[in-house]
Amino acid sequence: MLVDGINVVRELLNADAWIDKIIAEKGNNKDIEKLTDIARSKGVKVEFVEKKDLERIAKGKTQGIIAFIPNYKYCKIGDILGIAESRGEKPFIVILDGIADPHNLGAIIRTCECAGVHGVIIPENRACEVTDTVYRTSAGAITHMKIAMVKNLTRTINELKQLGVWIYALEAGNKSIYSADFTYPTALVIGSEGKGVSRLVSENVDEILSLDMFGTVNSLNASNAAAIGVYEVVRQRRK
Amino acid sequence: MLVDGINVVRELLNADAWIDKIIAEKGNNKDIEKLTDIARSKGVKVEFVEKKDLERIAKGKTQGIIAFIPNYKYCKIGDILGIAESRGEKPFIVILDGIADPHNLGAIIRTCECAGVHGVIIPENRACEVTDTVYRTSAGAITHMKIAMVKNLTRTINELKQLGVWIYALEAGNKSIYSADFTYPTALVIGSEGKGVSRLVSENVDEILSLDMFGTVNSLNASNAAAIGVYEVVRQRRK
Repeated sequence: MLVDGINVVRELLNADAWIDKIIAEKGNNKDIEKLTDIARSKGVKVEFVEKKDLERIAKGKTQGIIAFIPNYKYCKIGDILGIAESRGEKPFIVILDGIADPHNLGAIIRTCECAGVHGVIIPENRACEVTDTVYRTSAGAITHMKIAMVKNLTRTINELKQLGVWIYALEAGNKSIYSADFTYPTALVIGSEGKGVSRLVSENVDEILSLDMFGTVNSLNASNAAAIGVYEVVRQRRK
Repeated sequence: MLVDGINVVRELLNADAWIDKIIAEKGNNKDIEKLTDIARSKGVKVEFVEKKDLERIAKGKTQGIIAFIPNYKYCKIGDILGIAESRGEKPFIVILDGIADPHNLGAIIRTCECAGVHGVIIPENRACEVTDTVYRTSAGAITHMKIAMVKNLTRTINELKQLGVWIYALEAGNKSIYSADFTYPTALVIGSEGKGVSRLVSENVDEILSLDMFGTVNSLNASNAAAIGVYEVVRQRRK
Protein backbone atom coordinates (compact mmCIF):
# COMPACT_ATOMS: atom_id res chain seq x y z
CA MET A 1 0.00 0.00 0.00
CA LEU A 2 1.14 3.52 -0.82
CA VAL A 3 0.64 6.23 1.79
CA ASP A 4 1.30 9.92 1.28
CA GLY A 5 2.08 12.69 3.72
CA ILE A 6 4.60 14.11 6.16
CA ASN A 7 2.54 13.31 9.28
CA VAL A 8 1.83 9.77 8.13
CA VAL A 9 5.48 8.99 7.38
CA ARG A 10 6.57 10.57 10.66
CA GLU A 11 4.13 8.41 12.62
CA LEU A 12 5.16 5.28 10.73
CA LEU A 13 8.79 5.98 11.66
CA ASN A 14 7.87 6.83 15.27
CA ALA A 15 5.98 3.57 15.56
CA ASP A 16 8.87 1.60 14.01
CA ALA A 17 6.34 0.27 11.52
CA TRP A 18 7.65 -1.75 8.60
CA ILE A 19 8.30 0.48 5.57
CA ASP A 20 9.29 -1.12 2.26
CA LYS A 21 10.52 2.12 0.72
CA ILE A 22 10.21 5.89 1.00
CA ILE A 23 10.21 8.12 -2.07
CA ALA A 24 10.60 11.86 -1.57
CA GLU A 25 10.65 14.92 -3.76
CA LYS A 26 14.01 16.53 -4.52
CA GLY A 27 14.29 20.01 -3.05
CA ASN A 28 14.94 21.89 0.14
CA ASN A 29 12.04 20.92 2.36
CA LYS A 30 13.48 20.61 5.90
CA ASP A 31 10.60 18.49 7.24
CA ILE A 32 11.11 15.99 4.46
CA GLU A 33 14.90 16.00 4.86
CA LYS A 34 14.54 15.34 8.58
CA LEU A 35 12.24 12.40 7.91
CA THR A 36 14.44 10.86 5.26
CA ASP A 37 17.44 11.17 7.60
CA ILE A 38 15.53 9.34 10.32
CA ALA A 39 14.35 6.73 7.81
CA ARG A 40 17.90 6.03 6.65
CA SER A 41 19.13 5.79 10.22
CA LYS A 42 16.49 3.08 10.71
CA GLY A 43 17.64 1.21 7.61
CA VAL A 44 14.69 2.17 5.41
CA LYS A 45 15.42 2.51 1.70
CA VAL A 46 14.97 6.13 0.55
CA GLU A 47 14.85 7.50 -2.99
CA PHE A 48 14.68 11.09 -4.19
CA VAL A 49 12.87 11.89 -7.44
CA GLU A 50 11.57 14.95 -9.28
CA LYS A 51 8.13 16.28 -8.31
CA LYS A 52 6.53 15.15 -11.57
CA ASP A 53 7.89 11.62 -11.14
CA LEU A 54 6.59 11.44 -7.57
CA GLU A 55 3.15 12.49 -8.78
CA ARG A 56 3.31 9.86 -11.50
CA ILE A 57 4.19 7.14 -8.93
CA ALA A 58 1.52 8.34 -6.48
CA LYS A 59 -1.00 8.85 -9.30
CA GLY A 60 -1.77 12.37 -8.08
CA LYS A 61 -0.53 15.27 -6.00
CA THR A 62 1.47 14.43 -2.87
CA GLN A 63 2.85 16.20 0.20
CA GLY A 64 6.34 15.53 -1.18
CA ILE A 65 6.94 12.24 0.57
CA ILE A 66 5.33 8.84 0.15
CA ALA A 67 5.93 5.45 1.72
CA PHE A 68 5.25 1.93 0.55
CA ILE A 69 4.08 -0.20 3.43
CA PRO A 70 2.58 -3.68 3.79
CA ASN A 71 -1.24 -3.78 3.76
CA TYR A 72 -2.71 -2.99 7.17
CA LYS A 73 -2.64 -5.97 9.54
CA TYR A 74 -5.84 -6.26 11.51
CA CYS A 75 -5.65 -7.70 15.01
CA LYS A 76 -7.86 -10.09 16.97
CA ILE A 77 -10.38 -9.05 19.63
CA GLY A 78 -8.10 -10.73 22.16
CA ASP A 79 -5.27 -8.33 21.23
CA ILE A 80 -7.51 -5.36 22.06
CA LEU A 81 -8.45 -6.85 25.42
CA GLY A 82 -4.75 -7.56 25.96
CA ILE A 83 -3.93 -3.85 25.53
CA ALA A 84 -6.51 -2.98 28.19
CA GLU A 85 -5.05 -5.58 30.54
CA SER A 86 -1.47 -4.47 29.97
CA ARG A 87 -2.44 -0.89 30.84
CA GLY A 88 -4.36 -2.04 33.90
CA GLU A 89 -7.54 -0.44 32.57
CA LYS A 90 -11.12 -1.59 32.05
CA PRO A 91 -11.62 -2.34 28.33
CA PHE A 92 -12.60 0.69 26.23
CA ILE A 93 -13.56 -0.35 22.72
CA VAL A 94 -15.16 1.46 19.78
CA ILE A 95 -17.26 -0.58 17.36
CA LEU A 96 -18.01 0.98 13.98
CA ASP A 97 -21.20 -0.38 12.44
CA GLY A 98 -20.60 0.39 8.77
CA ILE A 99 -18.63 3.64 8.54
CA ALA A 100 -18.20 4.05 4.77
CA ASP A 101 -16.24 7.30 4.41
CA PRO A 102 -12.45 6.91 4.83
CA HIS A 103 -12.22 10.50 6.16
CA ASN A 104 -14.66 9.65 8.93
CA LEU A 105 -12.85 6.38 9.67
CA GLY A 106 -9.50 8.21 9.82
CA ALA A 107 -10.83 10.98 12.07
CA ILE A 108 -12.45 8.45 14.42
CA ILE A 109 -9.23 6.43 14.69
CA ARG A 110 -7.29 9.64 15.41
CA THR A 111 -9.71 10.61 18.19
CA CYS A 112 -9.66 7.07 19.61
CA GLU A 113 -5.87 7.10 19.72
CA CYS A 114 -5.82 10.47 21.51
CA ALA A 115 -8.43 9.25 23.98
CA GLY A 116 -6.61 6.05 24.87
CA VAL A 117 -9.20 3.70 23.37
CA HIS A 118 -7.80 0.15 23.41
CA GLY A 119 -9.04 -0.87 19.98
CA VAL A 120 -11.52 -0.33 17.19
CA ILE A 121 -13.69 -3.05 15.65
CA ILE A 122 -15.00 -2.83 12.10
CA PRO A 123 -17.07 -5.30 10.08
CA GLU A 124 -15.74 -7.12 7.04
CA ASN A 125 -18.60 -6.11 4.74
CA ARG A 126 -20.36 -2.88 3.81
CA ALA A 127 -17.74 -0.71 5.50
CA CYS A 128 -14.58 1.22 4.75
CA GLU A 129 -11.34 -0.72 5.18
CA VAL A 130 -8.01 0.77 6.17
CA THR A 131 -6.86 2.54 3.02
CA ASP A 132 -4.18 5.15 2.40
CA THR A 133 -6.81 7.90 2.89
CA VAL A 134 -7.53 6.46 6.34
CA TYR A 135 -3.80 6.52 7.14
CA ARG A 136 -3.56 10.14 6.06
CA THR A 137 -6.79 11.36 7.71
CA SER A 138 -5.84 9.65 10.96
CA ALA A 139 -2.66 11.79 10.94
CA GLY A 140 -0.73 8.57 11.44
CA ALA A 141 -2.71 7.58 14.55
CA ILE A 142 -3.56 4.31 12.89
CA THR A 143 0.01 3.07 13.36
CA HIS A 144 -0.60 3.18 17.12
CA MET A 145 -4.14 1.78 17.18
CA LYS A 146 -5.35 -1.81 17.22
CA ILE A 147 -8.09 -2.47 14.69
CA ALA A 148 -9.94 -5.77 14.42
CA MET A 149 -12.02 -6.67 11.39
CA VAL A 150 -14.76 -9.19 12.12
CA LYS A 151 -17.10 -11.23 9.95
CA ASN A 152 -20.16 -10.82 12.13
CA LEU A 153 -20.56 -7.75 14.32
CA THR A 154 -23.54 -9.16 16.21
CA ARG A 155 -21.61 -12.29 17.17
CA THR A 156 -18.65 -10.19 18.29
CA ILE A 157 -20.95 -8.01 20.40
CA ASN A 158 -22.37 -11.07 22.12
CA GLU A 159 -18.90 -12.48 22.75
CA LEU A 160 -17.83 -9.20 24.33
CA LYS A 161 -20.97 -9.16 26.50
CA GLN A 162 -20.08 -12.62 27.80
CA LEU A 163 -16.65 -11.26 28.73
CA GLY A 164 -18.32 -8.59 30.86
CA VAL A 165 -18.11 -5.68 28.42
CA TRP A 166 -21.13 -3.34 28.39
CA ILE A 167 -22.15 -2.51 24.83
CA TYR A 168 -23.77 0.86 24.17
CA ALA A 169 -25.01 2.10 20.80
CA LEU A 170 -24.96 5.83 20.19
CA GLU A 171 -28.25 6.48 18.43
CA ALA A 172 -31.40 8.58 18.64
CA GLY A 173 -33.48 7.39 21.58
CA ASN A 174 -34.81 8.24 25.00
CA LYS A 175 -31.86 7.54 27.27
CA SER A 176 -29.13 10.14 27.60
CA ILE A 177 -25.48 9.22 27.21
CA TYR A 178 -24.92 11.10 30.47
CA SER A 179 -26.95 8.52 32.40
CA ALA A 180 -24.54 5.65 31.66
CA ASP A 181 -21.64 4.58 33.86
CA PHE A 182 -18.60 4.11 31.64
CA THR A 183 -16.23 3.18 34.44
CA TYR A 184 -17.19 -0.45 33.73
CA PRO A 185 -15.73 -2.30 30.69
CA THR A 186 -17.25 -0.38 27.80
CA ALA A 187 -17.76 -0.68 24.06
CA LEU A 188 -19.40 2.18 22.16
CA VAL A 189 -21.13 1.37 18.88
CA ILE A 190 -21.17 4.15 16.28
CA GLY A 191 -23.59 3.81 13.37
CA SER A 192 -22.96 4.43 9.70
CA GLU A 193 -23.19 7.86 8.09
CA GLY A 194 -26.47 7.32 6.31
CA LYS A 195 -28.35 4.69 8.27
CA GLY A 196 -27.07 4.86 11.83
CA VAL A 197 -26.82 1.67 13.87
CA SER A 198 -28.23 -1.36 12.04
CA ARG A 199 -31.34 -3.08 13.39
CA LEU A 200 -29.64 -6.36 14.30
CA VAL A 201 -26.84 -4.59 16.15
CA SER A 202 -29.17 -2.27 18.04
CA GLU A 203 -31.22 -5.31 19.15
CA ASN A 204 -28.10 -6.91 20.59
CA VAL A 205 -26.53 -4.02 22.52
CA ASP A 206 -27.12 -3.52 26.23
CA GLU A 207 -28.44 -0.01 25.82
CA ILE A 208 -29.07 2.69 23.26
CA LEU A 209 -27.72 6.05 24.39
CA SER A 210 -28.43 9.43 22.83
CA LEU A 211 -26.90 12.86 22.65
CA ASP A 212 -29.07 15.85 23.52
CA MET A 213 -30.30 17.45 20.31
CA PHE A 214 -31.71 20.97 20.24
CA GLY A 215 -31.70 21.81 16.54
CA THR A 216 -33.65 20.94 13.46
CA VAL A 217 -31.01 18.80 11.74
CA ASN A 218 -30.92 16.25 14.57
CA SER A 219 -27.99 14.12 13.53
CA LEU A 220 -24.27 14.67 13.83
CA ASN A 221 -21.48 13.77 11.47
CA ALA A 222 -20.40 10.22 12.43
CA SER A 223 -16.89 11.20 13.54
CA ASN A 224 -18.21 14.11 15.63
CA ALA A 225 -20.73 11.83 17.35
CA ALA A 226 -17.96 9.29 18.00
CA ALA A 227 -15.70 12.02 19.43
CA ILE A 228 -18.37 13.20 21.88
CA GLY A 229 -19.11 9.64 23.00
CA VAL A 230 -15.47 8.65 23.35
CA TYR A 231 -14.62 11.74 25.41
CA GLU A 232 -17.61 11.22 27.71
CA VAL A 233 -15.98 7.89 28.60
CA VAL A 234 -12.67 9.73 29.11
CA ARG A 235 -14.37 12.31 31.35
CA GLN A 236 -16.01 9.66 33.53
CA ARG A 237 -12.83 7.61 33.87
CA ARG A 238 -10.44 10.41 34.83
CA LYS A 239 -9.45 10.55 38.46
CA MET B 1 -24.44 30.37 -5.20
CA LEU B 2 -25.14 26.83 -6.37
CA VAL B 3 -25.69 24.15 -3.72
CA ASP B 4 -26.08 20.47 -4.41
CA GLY B 5 -27.76 17.71 -2.47
CA ILE B 6 -31.06 16.30 -1.23
CA ASN B 7 -30.42 17.15 2.45
CA VAL B 8 -29.32 20.68 1.64
CA VAL B 9 -32.36 21.42 -0.53
CA ARG B 10 -34.66 19.85 2.07
CA GLU B 11 -33.21 22.07 4.83
CA LEU B 12 -33.42 25.18 2.64
CA LEU B 13 -37.12 24.45 2.05
CA ASN B 14 -37.72 23.64 5.73
CA ALA B 15 -36.11 26.92 6.70
CA ASP B 16 -38.14 28.86 4.11
CA ALA B 17 -34.82 30.19 2.82
CA TRP B 18 -34.87 32.16 -0.39
CA ILE B 19 -34.24 29.88 -3.41
CA ASP B 20 -33.85 31.45 -6.85
CA LYS B 21 -34.34 28.19 -8.72
CA ILE B 22 -34.15 24.41 -8.29
CA ILE B 23 -32.91 22.16 -11.08
CA ALA B 24 -33.46 18.42 -10.72
CA GLU B 25 -32.62 15.34 -12.71
CA LYS B 26 -35.39 13.68 -14.73
CA GLY B 27 -36.22 10.21 -13.47
CA ASN B 28 -38.06 8.36 -10.77
CA ASN B 29 -36.31 9.39 -7.58
CA LYS B 30 -39.04 9.69 -4.93
CA ASP B 31 -36.96 11.87 -2.57
CA ILE B 32 -36.33 14.35 -5.36
CA GLU B 33 -39.97 14.30 -6.50
CA LYS B 34 -41.13 15.00 -2.96
CA LEU B 35 -38.77 17.95 -2.68
CA THR B 36 -39.72 19.45 -6.03
CA ASP B 37 -43.40 19.14 -5.08
CA ILE B 38 -42.75 21.02 -1.84
CA ALA B 39 -40.68 23.60 -3.70
CA ARG B 40 -43.46 24.26 -6.21
CA SER B 41 -46.02 24.54 -3.42
CA LYS B 42 -43.81 27.27 -1.96
CA GLY B 43 -43.62 29.08 -5.27
CA VAL B 44 -40.02 28.12 -6.09
CA LYS B 45 -39.21 27.76 -9.79
CA VAL B 46 -38.32 24.11 -10.61
CA GLU B 47 -36.80 22.72 -13.80
CA PHE B 48 -36.13 19.10 -14.77
CA VAL B 49 -33.18 18.28 -17.01
CA GLU B 50 -31.23 15.22 -18.15
CA LYS B 51 -28.47 13.93 -15.84
CA LYS B 52 -25.69 15.05 -18.20
CA ASP B 53 -27.14 18.56 -18.42
CA LEU B 54 -27.39 18.79 -14.63
CA GLU B 55 -23.74 17.76 -14.35
CA ARG B 56 -22.80 20.37 -16.92
CA ILE B 57 -24.65 23.10 -14.98
CA ALA B 58 -23.19 21.97 -11.64
CA LYS B 59 -19.75 21.45 -13.19
CA GLY B 60 -19.51 17.94 -11.74
CA LYS B 61 -21.48 15.06 -10.28
CA THR B 62 -24.58 15.91 -8.23
CA GLN B 63 -27.06 14.16 -5.95
CA GLY B 64 -29.69 14.78 -8.62
CA ILE B 65 -30.96 18.09 -7.30
CA ILE B 66 -29.33 21.50 -7.08
CA ALA B 67 -30.53 24.90 -5.94
CA PHE B 68 -29.44 28.41 -6.78
CA ILE B 69 -29.52 30.59 -3.69
CA PRO B 70 -28.29 34.08 -2.81
CA ASN B 71 -24.79 34.20 -1.32
CA TYR B 72 -24.77 33.47 2.40
CA LYS B 73 -25.76 36.45 4.52
CA TYR B 74 -23.61 36.79 7.60
CA CYS B 75 -25.18 38.27 10.73
CA LYS B 76 -23.90 40.69 13.38
CA ILE B 77 -22.65 39.68 16.83
CA GLY B 78 -25.74 41.39 18.23
CA ASP B 79 -27.97 38.98 16.30
CA ILE B 80 -26.25 36.03 17.96
CA LEU B 81 -26.71 37.54 21.41
CA GLY B 82 -30.33 38.25 20.44
CA ILE B 83 -30.92 34.54 19.76
CA ALA B 84 -29.61 33.69 23.23
CA GLU B 85 -31.87 36.30 24.78
CA SER B 86 -34.94 35.19 22.84
CA ARG B 87 -34.39 31.62 24.05
CA GLY B 88 -33.83 32.80 27.62
CA GLU B 89 -30.39 31.20 27.68
CA LYS B 90 -26.90 32.37 28.59
CA PRO B 91 -24.95 33.07 25.38
CA PHE B 92 -23.24 30.02 23.88
CA ILE B 93 -20.97 31.02 21.02
CA VAL B 94 -18.34 29.17 18.98
CA ILE B 95 -15.45 31.21 17.55
CA LEU B 96 -13.42 29.60 14.76
CA ASP B 97 -9.88 30.94 14.60
CA GLY B 98 -8.96 30.14 11.01
CA ILE B 99 -10.70 26.89 10.05
CA ALA B 100 -9.61 26.44 6.42
CA ASP B 101 -11.27 23.18 5.36
CA PRO B 102 -14.91 23.56 4.24
CA HIS B 103 -15.66 19.99 5.40
CA ASN B 104 -14.51 20.88 8.90
CA LEU B 105 -16.48 24.14 8.85
CA GLY B 106 -19.60 22.31 7.66
CA ALA B 107 -19.27 19.57 10.29
CA ILE B 108 -18.72 22.14 13.06
CA ILE B 109 -21.79 24.14 12.00
CA ARG B 110 -23.84 20.93 11.93
CA THR B 111 -22.73 20.00 15.45
CA CYS B 112 -23.33 23.56 16.70
CA GLU B 113 -26.86 23.53 15.30
CA CYS B 114 -27.62 20.18 16.96
CA ALA B 115 -26.20 21.42 20.26
CA GLY B 116 -28.22 24.63 20.31
CA VAL B 117 -25.22 26.97 19.94
CA HIS B 118 -26.54 30.51 19.39
CA GLY B 119 -24.03 31.50 16.72
CA VAL B 120 -20.65 30.94 15.14
CA ILE B 121 -18.04 33.65 14.56
CA ILE B 122 -15.44 33.40 11.81
CA PRO B 123 -12.73 35.85 10.75
CA GLU B 124 -12.74 37.62 7.40
CA ASN B 125 -9.21 36.59 6.45
CA ARG B 126 -7.24 33.37 6.33
CA ALA B 127 -10.30 31.20 6.86
CA CYS B 128 -12.91 29.27 4.95
CA GLU B 129 -16.05 31.20 4.05
CA VAL B 130 -19.50 29.73 3.66
CA THR B 131 -19.32 27.90 0.33
CA ASP B 132 -21.54 25.27 -1.28
CA THR B 133 -19.31 22.55 0.24
CA VAL B 134 -20.03 24.02 3.67
CA TYR B 135 -23.77 23.95 2.92
CA ARG B 136 -23.55 20.31 1.88
CA THR B 137 -21.25 19.14 4.70
CA SER B 138 -23.42 20.88 7.28
CA ALA B 139 -26.34 18.72 6.03
CA GLY B 140 -28.29 21.94 5.68
CA ALA B 141 -27.72 22.97 9.31
CA ILE B 142 -26.28 26.23 8.08
CA THR B 143 -29.73 27.46 7.08
CA HIS B 144 -30.65 27.39 10.78
CA MET B 145 -27.43 28.80 12.23
CA LYS B 146 -26.33 32.40 12.71
CA ILE B 147 -22.80 33.04 11.46
CA ALA B 148 -20.99 36.33 11.90
CA MET B 149 -17.88 37.21 9.92
CA VAL B 150 -15.65 39.75 11.67
CA LYS B 151 -12.64 41.78 10.56
CA ASN B 152 -10.70 41.39 13.79
CA LEU B 153 -11.19 38.35 15.98
CA THR B 154 -9.21 39.80 18.90
CA ARG B 155 -11.34 42.93 18.99
CA THR B 156 -14.53 40.83 18.86
CA ILE B 157 -13.26 38.68 21.73
CA ASN B 158 -12.62 41.75 23.84
CA GLU B 159 -16.05 43.16 23.02
CA LEU B 160 -17.66 39.90 24.08
CA LYS B 161 -15.64 39.89 27.31
CA GLN B 162 -16.96 43.35 28.12
CA LEU B 163 -20.48 42.01 27.64
CA GLY B 164 -19.78 39.37 30.27
CA VAL B 165 -19.04 36.42 28.01
CA TRP B 166 -16.26 34.08 29.18
CA ILE B 167 -13.91 33.23 26.34
CA TYR B 168 -12.17 29.84 26.39
CA ALA B 169 -9.69 28.58 23.82
CA LEU B 170 -9.51 24.84 23.26
CA GLU B 171 -5.80 24.18 22.96
CA ALA B 172 -3.00 22.08 24.44
CA GLY B 173 -2.22 23.32 27.95
CA ASN B 174 -2.38 22.49 31.62
CA LYS B 175 -5.96 23.22 32.53
CA SER B 176 -8.62 20.61 31.77
CA ILE B 177 -11.82 21.53 29.96
CA TYR B 178 -13.63 19.68 32.75
CA SER B 179 -12.52 22.30 35.29
CA ALA B 180 -14.43 25.15 33.62
CA ASP B 181 -17.97 26.23 34.50
CA PHE B 182 -19.88 26.67 31.26
CA THR B 183 -23.17 27.64 32.88
CA TYR B 184 -22.00 31.27 32.55
CA PRO B 185 -22.13 33.07 29.18
CA THR B 186 -19.58 31.11 27.14
CA ALA B 187 -17.63 31.37 23.90
CA LEU B 188 -15.38 28.49 22.83
CA VAL B 189 -12.50 29.28 20.49
CA ILE B 190 -11.43 26.46 18.16
CA GLY B 191 -8.04 26.78 16.44
CA SER B 192 -7.18 26.13 12.83
CA GLU B 193 -6.36 22.67 11.48
CA GLY B 194 -2.63 23.21 11.15
CA LYS B 195 -1.67 25.83 13.67
CA GLY B 196 -4.26 25.72 16.42
CA VAL B 197 -5.29 28.92 18.16
CA SER B 198 -3.26 31.94 17.01
CA ARG B 199 -0.94 33.70 19.46
CA LEU B 200 -2.85 36.98 19.59
CA VAL B 201 -6.16 35.22 20.18
CA SER B 202 -4.78 32.94 22.88
CA GLU B 203 -3.34 35.98 24.68
CA ASN B 204 -6.78 37.58 24.74
CA VAL B 205 -8.96 34.72 25.92
CA ASP B 206 -9.90 34.25 29.56
CA GLU B 207 -8.53 30.74 29.75
CA ILE B 208 -6.94 28.02 27.69
CA LEU B 209 -8.64 24.67 28.22
CA SER B 210 -7.38 21.28 27.11
CA LEU B 211 -8.71 17.85 26.37
CA ASP B 212 -7.06 14.88 28.06
CA MET B 213 -4.67 13.23 25.62
CA PHE B 214 -3.35 9.71 26.14
CA GLY B 215 -1.90 8.84 22.76
CA THR B 216 1.11 9.66 20.69
CA VAL B 217 -0.63 11.78 18.05
CA ASN B 218 -1.82 14.36 20.57
CA SER B 219 -4.10 16.47 18.44
CA LEU B 220 -7.63 15.93 17.24
CA ASN B 221 -9.26 16.79 13.97
CA ALA B 222 -10.64 20.34 14.39
CA SER B 223 -14.29 19.38 14.02
CA ASN B 224 -13.92 16.50 16.50
CA ALA B 225 -12.29 18.80 19.05
CA ALA B 226 -15.08 21.33 18.54
CA ALA B 227 -17.73 18.63 18.97
CA ILE B 228 -16.25 17.48 22.30
CA GLY B 229 -16.00 21.05 23.59
CA VAL B 230 -19.48 22.02 22.46
CA TYR B 231 -21.07 18.96 24.04
CA GLU B 232 -19.24 19.52 27.33
CA VAL B 233 -21.10 22.86 27.47
CA VAL B 234 -24.34 21.01 26.65
CA ARG B 235 -23.66 18.47 29.41
CA GLN B 236 -23.03 21.14 32.02
CA ARG B 237 -26.08 23.19 31.05
CA ARG B 238 -28.66 20.39 31.00
CA LYS B 239 -31.02 20.30 33.95
